[in-house]
Amino acid sequence: MQWQQKEISLKARPRGFHLVTHEIVQQLPELAQFELGLLHLWIQHTSASLSINENADPDVRLDFESFFNRLVPESEPYYRHNDEGPDDLPAHFKSSLLGCELTIPIRQGGLKMGTWQGIYLGEHRNQAGSRQIVATLQGQTKSE
Amino acid sequence: MQWQQKEISLKARPRGFHLVTHEIVQQLPELAQFELGLLHLWIQHTSASLSINENADPDVRLDFESFFNRLVPESEPYYRHNDEGPDDLPAHFKSSLLGCELTIPIRQGGLKMGTWQGIYLGEHRNQAGSRQIVATLQGQTKSE
Amino acid sequence: MQWQQKEISLKARPRGFHLVTHEIVQQLPELAQFELGLLHLWIQHTSASLSINENADPDVRLDFESFFNRLVPESEPYYRHNDEGPDDLPAHFKSSLLGCELTIPIRQGGLKMGTWQGIYLGEHRNQAGSRQIVATLQGQTKSE
Repeated sequence: MQWQQKEISLKARPRGFHLVTHEIVQQLPELAQFELGLLHLWIQHTSASLSINENADPDVRLDFESFFNRLVPESEPYYRHNDEGPDDLPAHFKSSLLGCELTIPIRQGGLKMGTWQGIYLGEHRNQAGSRQIVATLQGQTKSE
Repeated sequence: MQWQQKEISLKARPRGFHLVTHEIVQQLPELAQFELGLLHLWIQHTSASLSINENADPDVRLDFESFFNRLVPESEPYYRHNDEGPDDLPAHFKSSLLGCELTIPIRQGGLKMGTWQGIYLGEHRNQAGSRQIVATLQGQTKSE
Repeated sequence: MQWQQKEISLKARPRGFHLVTHEIVQQLPELAQFELGLLHLWIQHTSASLSINENADPDVRLDFESFFNRLVPESEPYYRHNDEGPDDLPAHFKSSLLGCELTIPIRQGGLKMGTWQGIYLGEHRNQAGSRQIVATLQGQTKSE
């Protein structure tokens, strides 16, 4: 039985949805030690999101950005919290709609996602820096 | 302390929201061993979802289907990813809005949900086969 | 390695979004025992939600209430489940959109959230009583 917890960074990206599975796994060589377990990812921000979706056609990520911009419009006259730019409050709504965390099964040293599943970073601000993630790994190690 | 991980299947269902608590629990007799713990469910698809809602009135599931069809319309002119049918891209959006995973408390060999809570499978494709779920159980067993 | 599971209550609140980080942490003195781990929170209701967002400007919570009321309108003519009041069915939709659970990293006896992150209770009914949460803590204790 083992626990590991570390902070990792995702490089700064433009507003939109980005496939970050590889960038995350690359920073978690500890995964290889686990026979079976769970990886928990927590993004420490309220204007970005983590979700799971199709890892193949890049058009899906473009369509995500278009769809969520229509679902969560900017500059509505009833918005009160406007002092950080028109993209700020919608970024908060998107973050809560899509979520700031994932728990992914681990099997035989890797992530047991479906064939077409990948991890999406939703970058909901026009200008943002790198994004911090707390990664917690737990489970049975291969030597157990 | 114990870990178990297994893959289970949900039978093919028509598009819509379906109460699947019983079908899932039935495939997890291992639950009975746990005094206290967590069950993690992960659906390995990007066009279906797992969520929690009312387990009593079947009209609620019908209303879910109607509401989410209006929230996420088909065949919008700005959609790019259109080659898998008009229900495909909306299914991806619904999957990320509702989520592909649940973590449910275990207590005394059963799920510690509220009285009115049940597990909803959101089947967002017009035609889909059975759906695969990775179930991970962890916690303290009754003999500990 | 340690597991703890307990039920806590959030006091009754008016409809809207409420910052409840302090009320939750206050009821979990067990957190102090953990060097590293995860806290899982599960609200046992289908008309309230738990999510993470900005903990500073109270206007953000007011904007959440306004935005989600527009995203999920009441009394649509196509709604079938109407017998528990016009706020009931929208409360179910909001609960599934925002989610009924959180898993938060624990580090050195506290929650390892970002500086601006707080726990939001979404109270989606016009009249509701206190809300019950199952809290599950697991991880490595400081003495290990």
